[in-house]
Amino acid sequence: MEVNMKKIINEPTKVVSELLKGMELAHPELVYTEKLEVIARREKCNKVAVISGGGAGHEPAHAGYVGKGMLDAAISGNVFSSPSPDRIIEGIKQTDAGKGVLMVIKNYSGDIMNFGLAKDLAELEDIEVESVVVRDDVAVPDSTYSTGRRGIAGTVFVHKIAGAKAESGADLQEVKAAAEKAIANIRSMGMAMTPCILPAVGKPGFVLEENEIEIGMGIHGEPGVERTTVKTAKEVAKILLDKILVDYDFSNSEVALLVNGLGGTPLMELYILNKEVQELLAEQNIKVYKTLVGNYMTALDMSGCSITLMKLDDELKELLDAPCNTPGLTIN
Amino acid sequence: MEVNMKKIINEPTKVVSELLKGMELAHPELVYTEKLEVIARREKCNKVAVISGGGAGHEPAHAGYVGKGMLDAAISGNVFSSPSPDRIIEGIKQTDAGKGVLMVIKNYSGDIMNFGLAKDLAELEDIEVESVVVRDDVAVPDSTYSTGRRGIAGTVFVHKIAGAKAESGADLQEVKAAAEKAIANIRSMGMAMTPCILPAVGKPGFVLEENEIEIGMGIHGEPGVERTTVKTAKEVAKILLDKILVDYDFSNSEVALLVNGLGGTPLMELYILNKEVQELLAEQNIKVYKTLVGNYMTALDMSGCSITLMKLDDELKELLDAPCNTPGLTIN
Repeated sequence: MEVNMKKIINEPTKVVSELLKGMELAHPELVYTEKLEVIARREKCNKVAVISGGGAGHEPAHAGYVGKGMLDAAISGNVFSSPSPDRIIEGIKQTDAGKGVLMVIKNYSGDIMNFGLAKDLAELEDIEVESVVVRDDVAVPDSTYSTGRRGIAGTVFVHKIAGAKAESGADLQEVKAAAEKAIANIRSMGMAMTPCILPAVGKPGFVLEENEIEIGMGIHGEPGVERTTVKTAKEVAKILLDKILVDYDFSNSEVALLVNGLGGTPLMELYILNKEVQELLAEQNIKVYKTLVGNYMTALDMSGCSITLMKLDDELKELLDAPCNTPGLTIN
Repeated sequence: MEVNMKKIINEPTKVVSELLKGMELAHPELVYTEKLEVIARREKCNKVAVISGGGAGHEPAHAGYVGKGMLDAAISGNVFSSPSPDRIIEGIKQTDAGKGVLMVIKNYSGDIMNFGLAKDLAELEDIEVESVVVRDDVAVPDSTYSTGRRGIAGTVFVHKIAGAKAESGADLQEVKAAAEKAIANIRSMGMAMTPCILPAVGKPGFVLEENEIEIGMGIHGEPGVERTTVKTAKEVAKILLDKILVDYDFSNSEVALLVNGLGGTPLMELYILNKEVQELLAEQNIKVYKTLVGNYMTALDMSGCSITLMKLDDELKELLDAPCNTPGLTIN
């Protein structure tokens, strides 16, 4: 095969299976089911299962959040493409311990349809399945692949909260309620500076000029709200936060903050952005209880970022602080 | 200020102080000393201190490895530029608890000189200081900024081993001996696909053609051993591993493996590379005891990777497995 783009891959059509195999090899506590593209915890746990999934290309999401205290399994589609129901039902069966399964779905039409079909299949087999849908992106009301708001990096907080609640021994309705509470309290907003290149396509799906960025772009390159010139970190923080704070009243509350990179932006810049975000939040009397900075929900090699806030109460704080151990997030 | 490159920064001259401030804000257990660019653990620990440092631009290294079980402080220079001795002596003073300080230095002439001068200053103040020098990069015998082999991603393993040994209550000579053992057992080799852009420069320091990669390039863009066309992940794994395995006899041993990204390469590709590396190691009867995959020692937004192997014995396994809690690596 001739490789004609600068990616460390083999066959472009095999990137998903090879990446998941590489993840299993790096993390022996996870097991990978070939062809069905499911990563699951090797030991089935006697508790409510929490699963998620979606298109690949957002690594570490979602397979990288499988492990103690977060997900029990993640089901991957092809790059930027929803997993089919036959894959999802496999993830459900692998993880159900008789206490039911919560599916955490990002709001994209393909995911909604396919996870919904898998839920129907599970019910035929008497497996109790509930689902929650993450719609944290305040950028646009509807988008290319979604009716209603898109689900983006805030999903990682939902994995953490639902996973911790399930680990605590709560029942399916309690786990769902905790996830719903998190979802209701989460808002995100992002921007992109460069397009990403899909392995099977080999060239960018759109063009941003040398001095151009797009505010509100989605994690699959979906249109945002504005193309503008390159901004300082302080300006980026303000643009993204303003949109979040207009949408939801975080004033005088405690929050969890995620400063997320889209894959191609170095950690140096994310920490600089974090400084600006935290200074703006302090001015607004919004207290940051916990901060995550890094590449948590990416778009292949896209450069750019997103900011996520989750309003906390005592229950969410406790669930956020609970230990977890996954490739993408470890808390001890 | 007009920003004329696609980076999330403010003033290019302030990136180091702002990134470290952003790190302190994200991790309240760390304390940042302005102007001296020192990140240290907020609580001084009654044990041998382990410190490191070097130029910025390699995030999370080194400040991101400060915390329980790894470093007590990291001292940063400007981007790709060694910290001055007055900064380093501050890091030494902040962390010395009367049991001495081990400095982990990457083999670059500036670092060797400045950490050496700081050691002299410390001795004038009756602080016992020892140092070890990491020279893990097998690519070239000497390089632009080093006499002898460069220190690259293997340094992260040295931080882990020395930090765990110090945490166990060992004395300074014992901590140094553990670090020296790790260094003797570590080999790394990397490649780059795109140059990085220094914030203060605003344009790439060199050019790689559209279908060109450089085998053995350093983490500051120093020349490697060969420019060649883009390779598959399998080919990259073989080229890098072959060079490592010729240099050191890892056969029939257990190793720790680090598949490291240089900043601009997405995690998807690093996991695919990990699959190829692990398959080649299995063919050689080299058993992988523990694997790290991710951006551990970067070069700003450079795309590319490195592979590091550390041969393990019982002591190194125990030290590698010991819990740690830092922004860049958490083990529980």
